[in-house]
Amino acid sequence: MITLTTDFGYVDHYVAAMKGAIFSINPNARIVDVTHGVRRHDIRHAAYVLNAILPLFNRAVHVFVVDPGVGTERKGIAAKIGESWYVGPDNGIVTYVVDDIDEIFEITIEPKSTTFHGRDVFAPAAAYIDMGNFEHLKEIEEVYTFPYFKPRRKGNIVEGEIIHIDGFGNVITNIPKEMVSDVRIIKLLDRFIRFLPSYGYAHRDELIALINSEDYLEFAVNQGDASSILPYEVGDHISLEIQH
Amino acid sequence: MITLTTDFGYVDHYVAAMKGAIFSINPNARIVDVTHGVRRHDIRHAAYVLNAILPLFNRAVHVFVVDPGVGTERKGIAAKIGESWYVGPDNGIVTYVVDDIDEIFEITIEPKSTTFHGRDVFAPAAAYIDMGNFEHLKEIEEVYTFPYFKPRRKGNIVEGEIIHIDGFGNVITNIPKEMVSDVRIIKLLDRFIRFLPSYGYAHRDELIALINSEDYLEFAVNQGDASSILPYEVGDHISLEIQH
Amino acid sequence: MITLTTDFGYVDHYVAAMKGAIFSINPNARIVDVTHGVRRHDIRHAAYVLNAILPLFNRAVHVFVVDPGVGTERKGIAAKIGESWYVGPDNGIVTYVVDDIDEIFEITIEPKSTTFHGRDVFAPAAAYIDMGNFEHLKEIEEVYTFPYFKPRRKGNIVEGEIIHIDGFGNVITNIPKEMVSDVRIIKLLDRFIRFLPSYGYAHRDELIALINSEDYLEFAVNQGDASSILPYEVGDHISLEIQH
Repeated sequence: MITLTTDFGYVDHYVAAMKGAIFSINPNARIVDVTHGVRRHDIRHAAYVLNAILPLFNRAVHVFVVDPGVGTERKGIAAKIGESWYVGPDNGIVTYVVDDIDEIFEITIEPKSTTFHGRDVFAPAAAYIDMGNFEHLKEIEEVYTFPYFKPRRKGNIVEGEIIHIDGFGNVITNIPKEMVSDVRIIKLLDRFIRFLPSYGYAHRDELIALINSEDYLEFAVNQGDASSILPYEVGDHISLEIQH
Repeated sequence: MITLTTDFGYVDHYVAAMKGAIFSINPNARIVDVTHGVRRHDIRHAAYVLNAILPLFNRAVHVFVVDPGVGTERKGIAAKIGESWYVGPDNGIVTYVVDDIDEIFEITIEPKSTTFHGRDVFAPAAAYIDMGNFEHLKEIEEVYTFPYFKPRRKGNIVEGEIIHIDGFGNVITNIPKEMVSDVRIIKLLDRFIRFLPSYGYAHRDELIALINSEDYLEFAVNQGDASSILPYEVGDHISLEIQH
Repeated sequence: MITLTTDFGYVDHYVAAMKGAIFSINPNARIVDVTHGVRRHDIRHAAYVLNAILPLFNRAVHVFVVDPGVGTERKGIAAKIGESWYVGPDNGIVTYVVDDIDEIFEITIEPKSTTFHGRDVFAPAAAYIDMGNFEHLKEIEEVYTFPYFKPRRKGNIVEGEIIHIDGFGNVITNIPKEMVSDVRIIKLLDRFIRFLPSYGYAHRDELIALINSEDYLEFAVNQGDASSILPYEVGDHISLEIQH
């Protein structure tokens, strides 16, 4: 199984170009579109998606094309992560999963264009890997990662980072479930926010905190948009005081 | 075959999460995306889509995740409708097809999250049903439906309801073809509207009435947007006078 | 393999209706969505996509539903182009590939609706062709094409046409790579534009020229939107002076 995540949007034929490239090598490939709505050139958004989807598929080759450096010297890589693979540019998309990488390879396929390595390099590489053919891979030692604030708790103060704002406006942190398991109220920017089991328990328009479906602390508004209330952007540091 | 209809949009990985859940149970599943552009939490929109797609697939498990009540006490259900199934929340999505339901079941799968039953309950349930495995179903007697105005005709007055405004701005009623088969002109809100066989017969920018591809009365503008002319929203009652 | 390109967008179930029609004839069909984001009724956009995707698939039936004339007298056609096929309305979508057409057929399937030949005519026709069943085709002699400006070069002056503006705002011409292979600077509307190998070599916000992944001359802004700088629309004539 091959999954595709890009910032190509849904207007152009560029994703279909990648599928054509895959099928011409691997006619029986099974392809799942994850999203083509990654914000353009937003590597943190892509990194969030990779972290989120890795546990969802037993075994898949996850292709990512969010690639502002295409055509320059940045490498194309394939990283083995358990039974699955990351295939894409070496620009930090693997940051949140780097500790789980077993092996890293540079992709040696020569692109025929300078602008569309998704079609010319990453799609073919994924097609070969999915077939168990690893001849276009050369082992390397290092991948690029970007810096970020690792979550931590000291007493009643929990700190972390905003890692994503989703299409519903939910504001998602990198603070794991375990770090806030005993919490009933969160104080954030002078607001007191109830910690609830699900959206449906909130009053309409109430800003709440909850553990989201990927086991991270999230801020949400029942049938509304938390990102319009909280002044955060992806990458922002967050510090909160918890109450039992 | 499993189809997916949600209000998740195209930015996030939530639909892929459902596909991962399906494939981990049923690796050979065939999945068709119907739309992930249902207006957020709009159960009438979802009900319209279910009614529209049921006749299009010989045999399919239709999963719907438009679920403002997730995490509360609303049930997850599976309803057998001819050779096909509805799988999703018990919140009224089956309203327009309720008379065609043969059997109703509650889904007994325990979700691991309180916020994403699409991934934890409905996707697995569909994966099992598609494989002919019904062990996670418990028969029940009733489903929830919402009230709506059933279409009727008395002489030259036809009444019904707006059931959908599509992405082109076409304004779709629940008035069936048979109720307006003898019509040449429709009087609606002091407008006289020609009843034509297709968009292409209208003058440019003319508001017309026609029978749409699902055999319902629809208002449309040739190469334009009828919803910007007519003051209706989904769920509104509509009364029209017909002329032969 | 069957590909689908439409202007239906991602809100409605119309694409799924076509898939249902295909599967009911050809249950094992493999379907690839190219895009459903063609600008509504924009035949030039569809023509651009057909030209772009034909080389990407070894053998496919490419269905196009961008069809402002649906329900009128325009024909539905199937055109054999090498090992692949175009299936759709006879409204000019084949214009850019007309010289490569081997055989042209009218589709003889009778639609059951007057408004949705995508579901009633083109999807079934593609399903049959993909199975090697050609009984619903009647050979004809001519297809409709729209006029456009063929690219040409005289000395340092190169002329052509804007054929597409993509979702990133890249402004794409129909001027082929070979016609500008010796170029270092392009003078266009009193601007001097560097000709570079890829986006990544440009300064941030610099308008550049490059050969795109389909071997056409394109204007782009690194991490920006060239269409907001250049005053062109699709179909506009373009004249440029090149410098070595």
